[in-house]
Amino acid sequence: MKKMKDQNVKGTKDFLPEEERKRRHIRRTLENAFISYGCLPLETPILNEQSLMASKYAGGAEILKEMYTLSDRGERELALRYDLTIPFAKVAAMNPQLKKPFKRYEIGKVFRDGPIKKGRNREFTQCDVDVVGAEFPVAEAELMVMALDAFDELGMSVVLEYNNRKLLTGMLKRLGISSSNVNEAILILDKVEKIGVEKVLDQLGQLDIEGDTRQRIEDYITDERSQSLSYYQTLEQPNEELKEGIEEIEQLQEYIEALDIQSSCLFQPFLARGLDIYTGTIYEVFLKDNSLSSSIASGGRYDNAVGGFLGTNESISTVGLSFGLDVMFEAVSISDEVDVDVFVTTIGCPKQGLQVATKLRRQGKVVELDLSNKKLKKALERADAMGVSEVIIIGGREVEDGCYRLRDMQSGEETTVPFSYASF
Amino acid sequence: MKKMKDQNVKGTKDFLPEEERKRRHIRRTLENAFISYGCLPLETPILNEQSLMASKYAGGAEILKEMYTLSDRGERELALRYDLTIPFAKVAAMNPQLKKPFKRYEIGKVFRDGPIKKGRNREFTQCDVDVVGAEFPVAEAELMVMALDAFDELGMSVVLEYNNRKLLTGMLKRLGISSSNVNEAILILDKVEKIGVEKVLDQLGQLDIEGDTRQRIEDYITDERSQSLSYYQTLEQPNEELKEGIEEIEQLQEYIEALDIQSSCLFQPFLARGLDIYTGTIYEVFLKDNSLSSSIASGGRYDNAVGGFLGTNESISTVGLSFGLDVMFEAVSISDEVDVDVFVTTIGCPKQGLQVATKLRRQGKVVELDLSNKKLKKALERADAMGVSEVIIIGGREVEDGCYRLRDMQSGEETTVPFSYASF
Repeated sequence: MKKMKDQNVKGTKDFLPEEERKRRHIRRTLENAFISYGCLPLETPILNEQSLMASKYAGGAEILKEMYTLSDRGERELALRYDLTIPFAKVAAMNPQLKKPFKRYEIGKVFRDGPIKKGRNREFTQCDVDVVGAEFPVAEAELMVMALDAFDELGMSVVLEYNNRKLLTGMLKRLGISSSNVNEAILILDKVEKIGVEKVLDQLGQLDIEGDTRQRIEDYITDERSQSLSYYQTLEQPNEELKEGIEEIEQLQEYIEALDIQSSCLFQPFLARGLDIYTGTIYEVFLKDNSLSSSIASGGRYDNAVGGFLGTNESISTVGLSFGLDVMFEAVSISDEVDVDVFVTTIGCPKQGLQVATKLRRQGKVVELDLSNKKLKKALERADAMGVSEVIIIGGREVEDGCYRLRDMQSGEETTVPFSYASF
Repeated sequence: MKKMKDQNVKGTKDFLPEEERKRRHIRRTLENAFISYGCLPLETPILNEQSLMASKYAGGAEILKEMYTLSDRGERELALRYDLTIPFAKVAAMNPQLKKPFKRYEIGKVFRDGPIKKGRNREFTQCDVDVVGAEFPVAEAELMVMALDAFDELGMSVVLEYNNRKLLTGMLKRLGISSSNVNEAILILDKVEKIGVEKVLDQLGQLDIEGDTRQRIEDYITDERSQSLSYYQTLEQPNEELKEGIEEIEQLQEYIEALDIQSSCLFQPFLARGLDIYTGTIYEVFLKDNSLSSSIASGGRYDNAVGGFLGTNESISTVGLSFGLDVMFEAVSISDEVDVDVFVTTIGCPKQGLQVATKLRRQGKVVELDLSNKKLKKALERADAMGVSEVIIIGGREVEDGCYRLRDMQSGEETTVPFSYASF
């Protein structure tokens, strides 16, 4: 057979059965974890109003550049969703009848027309859990232990880094960064592990920051003590945001200890998360061996989104966690699965083969019916390559005798089984 | 809480948990059926090259009008997929290394900017099985019995109507319709049940058909005998296509009888299927009670698509069946499920609640942890409304005594259980 040249759009790919089996395993493991926490399934559309996806309660300027836009025959301005968080906040705001706490999960495709790297395509799958109406810090603690249990189930060794936006904002303001610059400064600081202190300071310098402030920031981020919570706890006269941030981290740490997950959790005061919407706890999960630079899950608290959509601007407790299926795919390995329980092959009697196969399938077996009219030897080779342990052989003599041959592929032994045993 | 106005794009919708549970049940039932037939999972992108989706081996002119198109930042001309068949044929043509028969299933979203009706939105989910490299009529028979078994499992009473494109084409040519008109005539004839004989004749009249031919067609479609295969079997001097069509239907019927599914199958000689690509067997599944006018599954043989994509134009045996999740949703009912095994509520000791809930979840239980600090009566009411049978209550006294109260919601009886029983 000839081969057609690659027709796939840049940033998209086909997942052939071997890959897709692993993806299905990851999806189901996550789904089972979500369900055991009492989360309910939700499915939102991929096609959205552009105005919704570009709302100021949504992803912010960076992500909008990567948004796929289109219009329909009714000349509506549409966009493909770039995450599952905004659709969730929309559903919460559109359906006030939903009982709180409303805990939902959604597994689905999202689209971003951005840079491609290992584990990150333009069309990719997110697996999200979000809770609206559950208070700090229990909701956070539940999501954290849920994530750690799911990664454990998948055989992944991870570290969950956490921080609090209030701590970070309060600290930067204390160092002299103005309110209007603080969000951008946070995004720059978040990159310190990737690009190093020098480049962070360079980029902060472009924010119109005075010399004193620059020096204070340099002192701050190069001071090793600033990595531990005690540094912040011992600061004199902390501002209100800083104080709240410290208190929230202390409370969260109590829960982390009660759940005995402290060895997998790490306070990381420069952790920022890319999006504007976060208002409190933020977290990101990385592989312990650092074999992937991207985080494999991330999330946080975003109490202003639902109220923003409602137009009331009230603070409504909302916290979420998003797992990246494609990036997890790179880190998970599964054992070779045998797809087929029984392999049925016939010598010139396809109808009887189909009858036996159908009966076995109705009994819950996975049956491969081989009617290619190969020589028996070839058929057995194919069954062997598939790892099947039992092969049923039906030829003219078997049909006459009202029985089939059952071959144990390991021993090579064959027994004769009356058709009635396959209950037909 | 206020309510945000509907933000959903026309032709799309959110599936809230109650609906989504039913959708998940349908998806999993179909997936299990696909797997038991040895089908392997495949996942193809939603974003495609426009040229692929508009290829002449694809859906044909009608469907292209409904295609959503867009371009990316690299100015590629893209389209959202409108079915899962073309992506499958693409994968088969791009990956000649896949062992034949290659049987795959895919469950995913497709998009058509067309008319909306009950069970048909613009963004909807298809569940497809296709086989490349399995010969007629075994592949057809396997798909038919698989579909009937799955519908049975879902408690749906259906009839599977089948026909053969060769029979229909041969017959129309015999009646005097030219080769260039025959495809369009088939699409018109397909509507006879919906619009009636008169309108079909009117529409056929616009195809530049001579008076004699018109009369012959009228005689044909109003002759009740033309509904049974014997009518065609007794025609004198059938043309080659007609003869092949009759033979193929005869062979398929032998298999239908061998599988004892004839009471759910119906030969329907006017059945056409909307798309151009079919080359042999076609089928459509309807509810027996006709409560939905749309078909709930459909498919057929399309031996020219893969070879067309390869550019070799060879005939490559390919047959498929597509289930419409959204339309099936309208016809399936499921029993009320209880989502939660155990409900945990605390009186002022959230950490202990979290500990107990986490232990139970790790044992595989679905646990709802209620930390809303409601009065106990309110919490029990909520548990009752959720249909939960066991509630765990933890208050200050329980923490002191190292135990929790376990309440049987049916009897109202409470027992005291040491914390260690939840293994912590």
